[in-house]
Amino acid sequence: MAGEIGVIVLFSCCLAIAICNVQQQYREKGRSVAVTQTSGMPWPMPKQMTVTTIQRILDVGSFQFLVSSSTQRCDIIDEAFVRYRKYIFGNDDRTLKFKTNRKPRHGSIDQEAYLDTLQINIASGCDGYPSEESNEAYTLMISQDASTATINANEVWGALRGLETFSQLVYQNDMGLAVINATIINDAPRFQHRGLLLDTSRHFLSLDILKENLELMAQNKFNVFHWHIVDDQSFPYESYYFPDMSRKGAYSVRHVYTHSDVKEIIEFARVRGIRVIPEYDSPGHSQSWGLAITNLLTKCYKDGQLSGDFGPIDPSVNSTFQFLQNFFLEISQVFPDKFIHLGGDEVPFDCWESNPDITSFMTMMGYGKNYALLEEYYMQRLIDIVQGLNKGYMIWQEVIDNGAKVAPDTIVHIWKGGYQDELTKVTKLGYNAVLSAPWYLNYISYGSDWRNYYQVEPLNFNGTDAQKALVIGGETCMWGEYVDNTNLIPRMWPRAASVGERLWSPMEVNSADAATSRLEEHRCRLLKRGFPVQPVNGPGFCSVEL
Amino acid sequence: MAGEIGVIVLFSCCLAIAICNVQQQYREKGRSVAVTQTSGMPWPMPKQMTVTTIQRILDVGSFQFLVSSSTQRCDIIDEAFVRYRKYIFGNDDRTLKFKTNRKPRHGSIDQEAYLDTLQINIASGCDGYPSEESNEAYTLMISQDASTATINANEVWGALRGLETFSQLVYQNDMGLAVINATIINDAPRFQHRGLLLDTSRHFLSLDILKENLELMAQNKFNVFHWHIVDDQSFPYESYYFPDMSRKGAYSVRHVYTHSDVKEIIEFARVRGIRVIPEYDSPGHSQSWGLAITNLLTKCYKDGQLSGDFGPIDPSVNSTFQFLQNFFLEISQVFPDKFIHLGGDEVPFDCWESNPDITSFMTMMGYGKNYALLEEYYMQRLIDIVQGLNKGYMIWQEVIDNGAKVAPDTIVHIWKGGYQDELTKVTKLGYNAVLSAPWYLNYISYGSDWRNYYQVEPLNFNGTDAQKALVIGGETCMWGEYVDNTNLIPRMWPRAASVGERLWSPMEVNSADAATSRLEEHRCRLLKRGFPVQPVNGPGFCSVEL
Repeated sequence: MAGEIGVIVLFSCCLAIAICNVQQQYREKGRSVAVTQTSGMPWPMPKQMTVTTIQRILDVGSFQFLVSSSTQRCDIIDEAFVRYRKYIFGNDDRTLKFKTNRKPRHGSIDQEAYLDTLQINIASGCDGYPSEESNEAYTLMISQDASTATINANEVWGALRGLETFSQLVYQNDMGLAVINATIINDAPRFQHRGLLLDTSRHFLSLDILKENLELMAQNKFNVFHWHIVDDQSFPYESYYFPDMSRKGAYSVRHVYTHSDVKEIIEFARVRGIRVIPEYDSPGHSQSWGLAITNLLTKCYKDGQLSGDFGPIDPSVNSTFQFLQNFFLEISQVFPDKFIHLGGDEVPFDCWESNPDITSFMTMMGYGKNYALLEEYYMQRLIDIVQGLNKGYMIWQEVIDNGAKVAPDTIVHIWKGGYQDELTKVTKLGYNAVLSAPWYLNYISYGSDWRNYYQVEPLNFNGTDAQKALVIGGETCMWGEYVDNTNLIPRMWPRAASVGERLWSPMEVNSADAATSRLEEHRCRLLKRGFPVQPVNGPGFCSVEL
Repeated sequence: MAGEIGVIVLFSCCLAIAICNVQQQYREKGRSVAVTQTSGMPWPMPKQMTVTTIQRILDVGSFQFLVSSSTQRCDIIDEAFVRYRKYIFGNDDRTLKFKTNRKPRHGSIDQEAYLDTLQINIASGCDGYPSEESNEAYTLMISQDASTATINANEVWGALRGLETFSQLVYQNDMGLAVINATIINDAPRFQHRGLLLDTSRHFLSLDILKENLELMAQNKFNVFHWHIVDDQSFPYESYYFPDMSRKGAYSVRHVYTHSDVKEIIEFARVRGIRVIPEYDSPGHSQSWGLAITNLLTKCYKDGQLSGDFGPIDPSVNSTFQFLQNFFLEISQVFPDKFIHLGGDEVPFDCWESNPDITSFMTMMGYGKNYALLEEYYMQRLIDIVQGLNKGYMIWQEVIDNGAKVAPDTIVHIWKGGYQDELTKVTKLGYNAVLSAPWYLNYISYGSDWRNYYQVEPLNFNGTDAQKALVIGGETCMWGEYVDNTNLIPRMWPRAASVGERLWSPMEVNSADAATSRLEEHRCRLLKRGFPVQPVNGPGFCSVEL
């Protein structure tokens, strides 16, 4: 393969100079419909990358990861070294196996061909949590002759991204050796907020599956796990202050995230540079809350009688806001991230309309029959509570659509059709926006649908530069109606990778045709690492199958 | 739960007396959209079933499977006893766990409440392979007081189906005991041919996945594994006579079914009452054959020159038929089933049209420009070869559509739209028909698409009773373009179960609404047994998740 790789790939934020996939045609005849793969190309594509044809060899026995003497060492880096050694060299039957490339003392292979060390230099400290202000930029230098490759980053979060890229550049050459081409990369994400939503209410997801997904997020440079942890159907979150909420609201005692489970997920995400933003959606989508919290939900009436059904949270009584104050105090303490997602979508009005106490409250407040004002009143009080806890918040777009006045730093989450007009509107009002509408991966269809997700341009809407700067990123969503432990991972991946590249790579990296062979390599790479990620490009194979 | 089960379910081939799902509403409030489950209801529904409310208890320590003294014992039954003990009582963390129901010597539970034994009576022998004439009928009697339940069957294949049903009737009652309701079942399949197609050419499937799928087929009473083993993209079958076909035609040396692999699959299927019908599709879909067999494929021309591309198998040279004679001699010996699937679909004519030797042959044969006649000529000679090997054969519908005259016992496989008209046509010509067109599970879509497959009535076409009697069954197909080891099982199951019930159960068992809760129980049952089968009915949970 060595002689065939002779490409320079170079992007800047403003200009794509060249796209050239290193294609490996496995067989000349009878394979016209089987997809080809690149070798040692990264996903998502870095901002700037220069690749040479010079292959450096990695010796499984002696290759080492180091931190520079000026760099603070911490568990984040230590754990990353363990992971990436495994991903580069393999450690069990299901992962990548290279020949043991023992470096010869004398022999035919030039000593200079070997790359011995990857050294990490981090300018600032190494502790803490990733945040909305994390710096994930890094440079990576694998020179043609130096025995040490280098990753430079201002923060540990950038070093993590650089390690992932480095691991992806390694491939197996024609002689079965683990090699990496001399390469220079200067990389940083296009969007700060690159999220993935999982819904653990419609179906429960085990800790193992949540971790597997976090691991795959890191390998695709996602940095926000939006945990839609509860909803109408079940309440798997074990609350410290209100333990009855999961006792009565979870599907069963086995369908609960305990205190330690939640801590474990947050820590697992942290060391991979992933923030955990929990969503406690209200005042709708909260049927399961009412199983434990008396008088929280609105009692519905039918023909002047209590129907036995419940509606959204009841904003007409003070006990509601006392509960919310306590509940979100807990949430603000359990989840270290600055942001909480407050939901606010799909609030039905019919139950509110049926309830005489709500009607009286509406009259008292002068709302007439405008239930959107009642919804706004609820959201405003909830937002005030959360602001009082010194937290930022995300909300679904309806809150803005219904006219609530929210704090200037509110992040509005756009999930519905006509999203381009919505982006125009929300950014015109000066709010930050996160886009999800075109990236609902739960909606499956036959064939290579990743191409549709890939071709979405988040800034393709009418607006000024200032408005476009308010789009801080996007999230791909896997709502849980039809996924659980059995099918989440293969259904999510590598389809989500297309969103990962859209949010990380320069705008100009936007050709699905050009990306296909590289995505195919990426799919096989994830498979080699032991993850059951499904085929997405029609007939083909990976050299190592699961 | 005991008091709530008070239903009689009774079907005959002609009349549905009652359908009543035993629904368990897990929670009264906040669960309106989470699907409910039956308890101890079988899938597919037997022909006749009478269920009482009397619960018999199964003691994990003392429960035994026996064969009657007059029954020949064989490995099929011995292995089935091991499997079903595991499925009923569980044997590892991922499978069904009941409390250890130690039968008390004295105590509060009546000794008569225990069911000690399941005895199998088989009238005929126990050896051999399942065939197109296998008798799968059985009766199952679990009485209100006898300590022994009984399965009576004429053939071992019926006993296997009865064991599966028995295992499905066992459930966990409110006290955590493994119980089975006193029940009488008289069961037999509606259609003889109940198949499932896997395609191992577009993506390779490991032996483990093929076995897992066979195991799930048995648990859904399928009896034909249609192995679409090779196609254009790859040739994973290791031939005895032509070993170069996989050496050159497989994706790699790791993507091959060796001689022993094929034997292993056939045996694994046999002991579960499943026939293996291999498909070697020609003259189209055979690009990978040509990588090893010189001059087999038609050489294509462009502008009067060889283009380097190849078309369908070349019917104009005798060497083609010499090869086919030898190749299918091998296939007829390797696969014990009476039937081989010969393909014959989607033959493109453009390469044939471009080739001057083919043109000469067409002229010599007096075919003019009618390439369908050339196709018919090929298929006729291939069929003659296979008939000479004393094998029956299946063909895709195009062979008939193109006017080939085939033997009266030919099975025509219908896969294209407008299948009702095709059924009318094919059966009017007197051929047996197998239906697949509405059951292509590779075409995925969002939501509960099993309902669409479930509601297909194979005999809903214009034809006489004699014509309808020629429809011997159907096959659900999972073409391999977008599935491999990573996603085959969850994508296939339990969606394929809906086809399984349509082909096994009486015509009148056809309400998807009525089937939903029972399918939900079935899904959770397969999950408890350790298989990653996906959710298909929206939000919900299983008591044991994977």
